[in-house]
Amino acid sequence: MDLLIPEMIIDEWLREDVGLFDLTTQALGIGDKEGMAEIMLREKGVLCGAREAARIYLKAGADEVEVAEEGVEEEGVVLRAVGRAEALHKAWRVAQNVVALASGVATYTRKMVEAAKSINPNVKVIVARKAPPCRHLYYKGVICGGASLHRTSLSDTVILFDNHTVFISFEEALRRLKNSDLVWDKKIVIEVDSVEKAVIAVKEGFEWIQADHLKPDELRTLYERVKSINDRAKVIAAGGIKLENVKEYAFVDAILTSAPYWSKPLDATTKMAPL
Amino acid sequence: MDLLIPEMIIDEWLREDVGLFDLTTQALGIGDKEGMAEIMLREKGVLCGAREAARIYLKAGADEVEVAEEGVEEEGVVLRAVGRAEALHKAWRVAQNVVALASGVATYTRKMVEAAKSINPNVKVIVARKAPPCRHLYYKGVICGGASLHRTSLSDTVILFDNHTVFISFEEALRRLKNSDLVWDKKIVIEVDSVEKAVIAVKEGFEWIQADHLKPDELRTLYERVKSINDRAKVIAAGGIKLENVKEYAFVDAILTSAPYWSKPLDATTKMAPL
Repeated sequence: MDLLIPEMIIDEWLREDVGLFDLTTQALGIGDKEGMAEIMLREKGVLCGAREAARIYLKAGADEVEVAEEGVEEEGVVLRAVGRAEALHKAWRVAQNVVALASGVATYTRKMVEAAKSINPNVKVIVARKAPPCRHLYYKGVICGGASLHRTSLSDTVILFDNHTVFISFEEALRRLKNSDLVWDKKIVIEVDSVEKAVIAVKEGFEWIQADHLKPDELRTLYERVKSINDRAKVIAAGGIKLENVKEYAFVDAILTSAPYWSKPLDATTKMAPL
Repeated sequence: MDLLIPEMIIDEWLREDVGLFDLTTQALGIGDKEGMAEIMLREKGVLCGAREAARIYLKAGADEVEVAEEGVEEEGVVLRAVGRAEALHKAWRVAQNVVALASGVATYTRKMVEAAKSINPNVKVIVARKAPPCRHLYYKGVICGGASLHRTSLSDTVILFDNHTVFISFEEALRRLKNSDLVWDKKIVIEVDSVEKAVIAVKEGFEWIQADHLKPDELRTLYERVKSINDRAKVIAAGGIKLENVKEYAFVDAILTSAPYWSKPLDATTKMAPL
């Protein structure tokens, strides 16, 4: 599985770093020398972003690029590009940043998924829209790490939040969602901050309950009440869940998190050599 | 001081989150209700990204937005937007993410600048190109926090790295940089990993020495040797410097860091109310 990352996004990553050229390479007069560049992971982690790094090297003018497999644990050389020094120097920093960042997200995500599944093999880990702008790389990182996307835009899923029910009551909102032609074929998630609201929603026939910032004890009560009313209903736990505390919440159907976005990039470097 | 953040970048931030509309708001039939949205910082920090958040609200269709001043410490409400619920819901998450992320970077940067200047009031803190893709917001954060940009692209400054000198010798590289018509009006930085190379570069007339991954003791020797040869020469310390250890390096002319990019976003939330 991989994401579609449009050419214009890759262009923008490269453009902002390079400007027009690597002036140093030009001033040194080494642009035409044939060389090799290698991206090395100096710590072990789940490789991600290597295909985008390859696209960056090719776009910058490299002749050939080979990359290690994404989504598996790697260490050492994960990309090797061959070409003129000019091309290698244009791609260097951006390609390395992309691998370091996406692999950092993937590595953290993998750890969080493993921790959660060690408690409950059926639990899903899904990531929130609380991501830094320009999400492609972050989303790619969580996919490489084995989590999935909760919703990819406001248009594809319906989630009822408090900020909707300030305009109409919770009960009226549920009634309207049930009767709306606009969303009859969509997944409808009801975010709740109490057991009582969860019970109301499930009794009204809603099957996706997102519990926001509930402590594990109260979440367990909510979970049991929801399942006793409708055992097909799903409970998603959200709010402050990260690697350190995910096991306390892992009894639910899914964990919603934004913690992987703020993980540290993997330690990566780039070494060049003449050919 | 503020950055130029092009409309197409703001467009992309909003597009990726919204898709086409907030389907939930549409299904609820509350889109035309007049309301107010407030972004609140739940922890104190240096506000940044508020102007971009305002642009996001206006672009999404809000009627009016007011924001607190950027670059100063804030807590509580930092943005208030008024308009139709439809507009507020489109802007909500993106605007909040932008403020949380940029303010997190600004707050970390401010702390690092203050720590460094407590040791040496003349030291500069400058940030590296080792940034996540889509740098506008990160760069804005460091500016709000009181640091500055080391170079904004490969085209504007010349920095001699090891990855250049694999193609020709260090001495030959210095000779070519001194004689290049391409860079006669540019700042030329020589990155070194030893006192010996720094001494060679300064004796050749180069005045910007970037010391990479030197321990504080060796860095001090380098600093004193460089200044004894040319007291106008500047020493930049780079490599693994962050808030926790910046004071050990702050005796030099400038600290180069990428640590602010990986700081945690400030805790922010958005509350809406009908009008």
